[in-house]
Amino acid sequence: MTLNWSQVDVPTALTAIAQETDTYLGRYLQSLTGSPQQITEAMAYSLLGAGKRIRPGLAVLSSLAVGGTVEQGLVAGAAVEMIHCFSLIHDDLPAMDDDDLRRGRPTNHKVYGEAMAILAGDALNTLAFHLLATRVQPAALAGKLVTELAFATGPEGMIGGQVLDTCHPEEAKADTTAASLSKLQHIHRLKTGALINVACRMGAMAGGATETQLALIDRYGHAVGLAFQIVDDILDVTSTAEQMGKATGKDAGKGKLTYPSLLGLEASREHLAKQVAVTDAVTQELGTNARLLAELSRAMAQRTK
Amino acid sequence: MTLNWSQVDVPTALTAIAQETDTYLGRYLQSLTGSPQQITEAMAYSLLGAGKRIRPGLAVLSSLAVGGTVEQGLVAGAAVEMIHCFSLIHDDLPAMDDDDLRRGRPTNHKVYGEAMAILAGDALNTLAFHLLATRVQPAALAGKLVTELAFATGPEGMIGGQVLDTCHPEEAKADTTAASLSKLQHIHRLKTGALINVACRMGAMAGGATETQLALIDRYGHAVGLAFQIVDDILDVTSTAEQMGKATGKDAGKGKLTYPSLLGLEASREHLAKQVAVTDAVTQELGTNARLLAELSRAMAQRTK
Repeated sequence: MTLNWSQVDVPTALTAIAQETDTYLGRYLQSLTGSPQQITEAMAYSLLGAGKRIRPGLAVLSSLAVGGTVEQGLVAGAAVEMIHCFSLIHDDLPAMDDDDLRRGRPTNHKVYGEAMAILAGDALNTLAFHLLATRVQPAALAGKLVTELAFATGPEGMIGGQVLDTCHPEEAKADTTAASLSKLQHIHRLKTGALINVACRMGAMAGGATETQLALIDRYGHAVGLAFQIVDDILDVTSTAEQMGKATGKDAGKGKLTYPSLLGLEASREHLAKQVAVTDAVTQELGTNARLLAELSRAMAQRTK
Repeated sequence: MTLNWSQVDVPTALTAIAQETDTYLGRYLQSLTGSPQQITEAMAYSLLGAGKRIRPGLAVLSSLAVGGTVEQGLVAGAAVEMIHCFSLIHDDLPAMDDDDLRRGRPTNHKVYGEAMAILAGDALNTLAFHLLATRVQPAALAGKLVTELAFATGPEGMIGGQVLDTCHPEEAKADTTAASLSKLQHIHRLKTGALINVACRMGAMAGGATETQLALIDRYGHAVGLAFQIVDDILDVTSTAEQMGKATGKDAGKGKLTYPSLLGLEASREHLAKQVAVTDAVTQELGTNARLLAELSRAMAQRTK
């Protein structure tokens, strides 16, 4: 990419990273010459040309923040995006959240049928690890990235969060507010936080982070992951489906735990501001290379869709 | 294990490997201390204490055949078994094959519900790569095994075979017999053959195979994978559900392509004998360490359930 990364602003940087991610993932899918056309198409439908590419953005900017390159962060970000995409396809299934609309378009199973949506999600889950194992050098780094991504994706990470969120909503409703807040934070840390944090960590590791840098990036990743979820919960209350490109007000309708339902809107916004204070402090320690990472966190906290 | 592997017979060897695999996988699941209880239980239900453990058997005996150890083959076999188990859970879902019975017990979604069955399958898919990345040394070997397993599992392997098998049965029925046979072999090579072959390959690689040895193991793996599927198709016609521990006669009922439906029973059995001839020849080239691998192929060809 020919951008001057030390001067560019966040929207321009994210747009460029989103385009590069799209190109990278599109080429990767094309390289799967033995894949049946139907499933390649179903994967491409959900994987390409849509989504804000927050996770690749975080991976690339984390690589830059520790002195690495855009390209180093891009491989890590692409793998995380494949996992994110697999989880969206499966979450939307009738047996899960039963959603018809995603990113302003019909969900994968609405277009390709349930069987294909299950298989396309499965394939993207598997291929994220294939991509890392075949595209990252040296092998020791590839192995570390596979470990990071598998841990963040599995039952101790994202999938575990889905279990807690999807499979026992009734139990959660019966809790006291204090117990619920603790449970809510635990669910979020797993369900969305783990993958957002690992995008930052993997980008930094691919970019050659020192232990000290990685520890700072890890704190950034936790805070920005929490911020992301609080904003998502707030927008579910305050936005319309048209603005969001997906169904809104669903969380409240299903009695799911959310920050606004537990704390109210104002306290949720304060909680959000605290996370941004953490990312500000951490990025300052990381130095001037982390300027975009700091700005991204603030932009995410202010997003309106 | 204290068996004398140079003298033991195949049933004894397989029983010992199955027990070791169970112990290994059980310990691995227990090590996931951050996993919610419900999903650990759902994974354990399908992963432990059931199944013939053909793939771990092939991995361990392939390791022995190239001069490696039982332990080296076991890690590879455990990872392949997790992928096999994930695929069974998802294949049984209502949107896929809609099966109520598996290995003589209710299928995963019948016990834990569809949402949990989807998530448990997803988790096992992810964790197979986590296991390899965290348990195999050196890192370069771990990376190679992740690449092998991801390729064999993904849309160019098992999942691709599922797509061809599940998503277009009507199209297949309209084919001529010659085109159908070619398509059938292609589906089998992907759907069951890829994972069986990769169990052999990964076991051999983990056991330190030379290029020549790996090429022979690869030929063995292809032939034994084909043999396995032909026997499966034959048993679907000739066995009862009670013998098999799962629904039988379903393939014919759904008009799916099978060897007996295309070639008849007798020609199917001849085709099976040809595969055993290949495994005999290849294991002879591998030498005395491959005795059990040769016997396993013959035993698989003769199985009655």
